[in-house]
Amino acid sequence: MLTLDANLQLALDLVGIFAFALTGGLVAVKKRLDLFGVLVLASAAALGGGVLRDLLIGVTPPVGISDWRLLGAAVVAGLTTFLFHPGVARISKVVLVLDAAGLATFAIGGSLKALGAGVDPLAAVVIGGITAVGGGMLRDVLAGQVPEVLRREMYALPALFGSALIVAAHHYDVISTAAIWACVGLVFIIRIAAVILDVHAPKPLRTGDLT
Amino acid sequence: MLTLDANLQLALDLVGIFAFALTGGLVAVKKRLDLFGVLVLASAAALGGGVLRDLLIGVTPPVGISDWRLLGAAVVAGLTTFLFHPGVARISKVVLVLDAAGLATFAIGGSLKALGAGVDPLAAVVIGGITAVGGGMLRDVLAGQVPEVLRREMYALPALFGSALIVAAHHYDVISTAAIWACVGLVFIIRIAAVILDVHAPKPLRTGDLT
Amino acid sequence: MLTLDANLQLALDLVGIFAFALTGGLVAVKKRLDLFGVLVLASAAALGGGVLRDLLIGVTPPVGISDWRLLGAAVVAGLTTFLFHPGVARISKVVLVLDAAGLATFAIGGSLKALGAGVDPLAAVVIGGITAVGGGMLRDVLAGQVPEVLRREMYALPALFGSALIVAAHHYDVISTAAIWACVGLVFIIRIAAVILDVHAPKPLRTGDLT
Repeated sequence: MLTLDANLQLALDLVGIFAFALTGGLVAVKKRLDLFGVLVLASAAALGGGVLRDLLIGVTPPVGISDWRLLGAAVVAGLTTFLFHPGVARISKVVLVLDAAGLATFAIGGSLKALGAGVDPLAAVVIGGITAVGGGMLRDVLAGQVPEVLRREMYALPALFGSALIVAAHHYDVISTAAIWACVGLVFIIRIAAVILDVHAPKPLRTGDLT
Repeated sequence: MLTLDANLQLALDLVGIFAFALTGGLVAVKKRLDLFGVLVLASAAALGGGVLRDLLIGVTPPVGISDWRLLGAAVVAGLTTFLFHPGVARISKVVLVLDAAGLATFAIGGSLKALGAGVDPLAAVVIGGITAVGGGMLRDVLAGQVPEVLRREMYALPALFGSALIVAAHHYDVISTAAIWACVGLVFIIRIAAVILDVHAPKPLRTGDLT
Repeated sequence: MLTLDANLQLALDLVGIFAFALTGGLVAVKKRLDLFGVLVLASAAALGGGVLRDLLIGVTPPVGISDWRLLGAAVVAGLTTFLFHPGVARISKVVLVLDAAGLATFAIGGSLKALGAGVDPLAAVVIGGITAVGGGMLRDVLAGQVPEVLRREMYALPALFGSALIVAAHHYDVISTAAIWACVGLVFIIRIAAVILDVHAPKPLRTGDLT
């Protein structure tokens, strides 16, 4: 069992929530939803991964709907997107960077919380990955589009890699605040590199009509 | 902690379940699903919000899949829609009124059950809102359409308002059967007024291509 | 309360997981997803039903994300689909048979696990049905298509029937390994017969424009 500094867990959560809420708000604006739709989609994107994580480890009610700081961060980011969305869209590269930061903090933070709840290493890795991509999946399903994570393989893989790394660090008892932030940084760098280099996973062989 | 009269909780649940099951059945009929599809979509719309509520407060198995009265109400409403759907569609104003009643009872009932499970006030408000709109979201996602709640802001807002009101009443210890039904009535009236007056939340500024 | 032989529960799970993962992988290939998307959709189809089942009965973390044998079976089946999908598609009749086997083992296995967790008979039947169809629903929602279960009534009905049968057997204390496999076989045969005979449930009366 791992006892993590509460402030560190909160910091990991807040960065991810703010970044993902911006992406949720932008999708809502593109779909021409109104103010309320923007706030709902921003919250779903920002809090969905953490709520899923908490349900999977049996923490109820999930912290994403009971801690006003997390809910507040999502709402503020949603409101920001609603008011300033042409600007937010223009700085979409900034959003991409924030999104990579969110991916990294959610993956590491999700795995750490799962370990803290006493789950097995394998489950902790999977839960880290689900925490990182769950909110974006919920956002896309609600918005009626195929989840981006299914199309961008170098999105979930860095998250799973980071989760595996932090779970290994925990297993070999070399975990520390520095190790945590190093893992976060590594996931972030891999994700950004994948974006810049436009790395893709192989596609299946093209075939005739499969229908 | 709040101990609510079991009959009152059941009544709040049953009204909502019947109303939402009708809306689920109607969506299924429009999508040309067969009998079984109608029953599944009716049940998803009617029971989805309550199942989500119970998962979020850690009540397993959720009452929506273990109490035959709730499941039965959903199935009967689904069957009614299947058999009499041209009539049900013709009385779509009645369905709209029932739906508003379901929204109101689920929001208040969901918050009360969450308070009874000992969750914090903020979580109780959010869970009330999720109880009220969750079933409809599930219905729309399964039917392949963008959830209506994302497009109808004056749908979820009255639910959240009613949840906040009942949580406040609980906080100041002025809760009573009369107060509960007053909150239900208020949410119902606000929702009906929004439909009649065709109130909308602001939309984002129209901009150029955001894609 | 029911204590089921762990090997039997594992066998029931593994057959279903492998079969459903193949169907998930095939949908992903048709949608032109890359390797990672294939693996995610295969895992969602294979493990979604069991994860839902475990959340509904309060078992956290769900065994589908913590037991490497289950996760491994899903990944191997996904990889198989990715590498050999023209072959897998060509043998789509084999997949249909495997899918029927998965449906049968998941329905019976889901109900038995629910009974083992001490839930009421009605909930055990419903949970068996959800275990059997939940993964396929998740697969279709993620892939952006209306869940097949809503369109194929003779898919979920055999599952519910088998679940009801095994719950009744448990109620009358006549459960045994032989009874379990007999129920699995019966669901399998009914499902295959429905495919061969192309049985359909009634559709709603065709009406004018309901929109």
